[in-house]
Amino acid sequence: MAVFHHQVIVEFSDTDAAGVVHFSNYLRFMERVEHAFWRSLGRSVITEATDAHISFPRVRAECDYLLPARFEDVIDAALTVENIGTKSVSFRVEFSLRGRAIARGRMVAVCCRMLPRGKLESIEIPEMLRKPMERFVAEAPPA
Amino acid sequence: MAVFHHQVIVEFSDTDAAGVVHFSNYLRFMERVEHAFWRSLGRSVITEATDAHISFPRVRAECDYLLPARFEDVIDAALTVENIGTKSVSFRVEFSLRGRAIARGRMVAVCCRMLPRGKLESIEIPEMLRKPMERFVAEAPPA
Amino acid sequence: MAVFHHQVIVEFSDTDAAGVVHFSNYLRFMERVEHAFWRSLGRSVITEATDAHISFPRVRAECDYLLPARFEDVIDAALTVENIGTKSVSFRVEFSLRGRAIARGRMVAVCCRMLPRGKLESIEIPEMLRKPMERFVAEAPPA
Amino acid sequence: MAVFHHQVIVEFSDTDAAGVVHFSNYLRFMERVEHAFWRSLGRSVITEATDAHISFPRVRAECDYLLPARFEDVIDAALTVENIGTKSVSFRVEFSLRGRAIARGRMVAVCCRMLPRGKLESIEIPEMLRKPMERFVAEAPPA
Repeated sequence: MAVFHHQVIVEFSDTDAAGVVHFSNYLRFMERVEHAFWRSLGRSVITEATDAHISFPRVRAECDYLLPARFEDVIDAALTVENIGTKSVSFRVEFSLRGRAIARGRMVAVCCRMLPRGKLESIEIPEMLRKPMERFVAEAPPA
Repeated sequence: MAVFHHQVIVEFSDTDAAGVVHFSNYLRFMERVEHAFWRSLGRSVITEATDAHISFPRVRAECDYLLPARFEDVIDAALTVENIGTKSVSFRVEFSLRGRAIARGRMVAVCCRMLPRGKLESIEIPEMLRKPMERFVAEAPPA
Repeated sequence: MAVFHHQVIVEFSDTDAAGVVHFSNYLRFMERVEHAFWRSLGRSVITEATDAHISFPRVRAECDYLLPARFEDVIDAALTVENIGTKSVSFRVEFSLRGRAIARGRMVAVCCRMLPRGKLESIEIPEMLRKPMERFVAEAPPA
Repeated sequence: MAVFHHQVIVEFSDTDAAGVVHFSNYLRFMERVEHAFWRSLGRSVITEATDAHISFPRVRAECDYLLPARFEDVIDAALTVENIGTKSVSFRVEFSLRGRAIARGRMVAVCCRMLPRGKLESIEIPEMLRKPMERFVAEAPPA
């Protein structure tokens, strides 16, 4: 299983009055890491197509917070693909700082055609997007 | 069971290029609703004490996204207390728009004394904070 | 001259590790106040028209920071119209806390038709938008 | 005169429903560039000292918006020091995209000792901070 790593430097505007990264920002970080992952595959989260763009709106996000991160910390984010379904994909992102896990997130996104007026239509994940993700799928747990 | 309602108006800066509220902002909204809830009880999420302030850092947050919300939508957020443990409390927030559920979130927060240098020490939830929350606890599901 | 007042409550996510509202958020507040101002006039910053929506993208924003604001502070924002030109309008927003000025902002926005593909075309401010703003224009300084 | 360059990639969460970077985010970008500038000098915007940390809270920020930037654009930010006073410093940041200027910002920050309870005391900029900035000062305009 391959793991995609991306660095996130904590900006001052990411912090809150508790002196640490505001908890909502880990979702922004997770999305940032996913988008960098798509780019590392030579793609973008938004695939331009002639009739309608294809993208992956999120239907679920979650995060466990273990330890705080502070201004100018350089966080390692490790993304793996938990599961690729017919129409949806779930990602896991583990954030660590100086070798210690600080947060663990998960997102589920659904492959959609983006129609006029903000309408979305879920579709099967095209092979050209599915294929490059496959080697990042975490191995199935033993039966 | 009591439910605490709070209105969230979607600001332009809450939206993203998909024309809808960015998914990370529901966590900011959930926190905002929780803080308004504390104020409605005559309290604040931060209790000033002589030795060390008491607050509720989050250890987990999650959200399911059902339908999008757009600029100037007025979202109703309905907060209930899922569970009050000895040291932690979990909240549920259901967001709805024109009567339809658009997102369902959940947060777990731990009662902590905030010590110097950003250190935290988990403590039992003081009675003065636990008591007023109790009538917002969702009834236990039937056995 | 009329003044439009709007309250901004400082959310925890508006603060930074210095314990105060992050300076960039005053621009978000200024926009929020402007949008509330349009609503108070029975309008929205985005006017729907049959051919192309009309809106007011900003071409300049500025802010002077005098005193800090903190979590749960309730800030009064007072908006006046500095000047209405043929195609552009400038707003001033004075933020105050417990009667003391804490920040002074200014924005210049240009009336535009929003064309397909994100193109913008500046146009004269329609009378129906110009008229209701006029009584908020700060009086000209004496010659 | 030296110029400090820093790249800013536009994240999806930086955009708004107009499909472009929200105007307030240029202030976050300006701060990010300034902090990267301090690090490039082997420093941080926060200097730890035995008695009280030294930092540079902003007293003014401003930005002119020329052209929009969109998701995944890679913006070049070019920072120069406009002026170093006894206690304050002003920075200019020019943002450009594919060789065209898209925004021009300016910030004024005051050197302060950060005292307990969020109190600030303005002080003369220490020589160890002033010296490395000097070669980034834009040349004075001819008399």
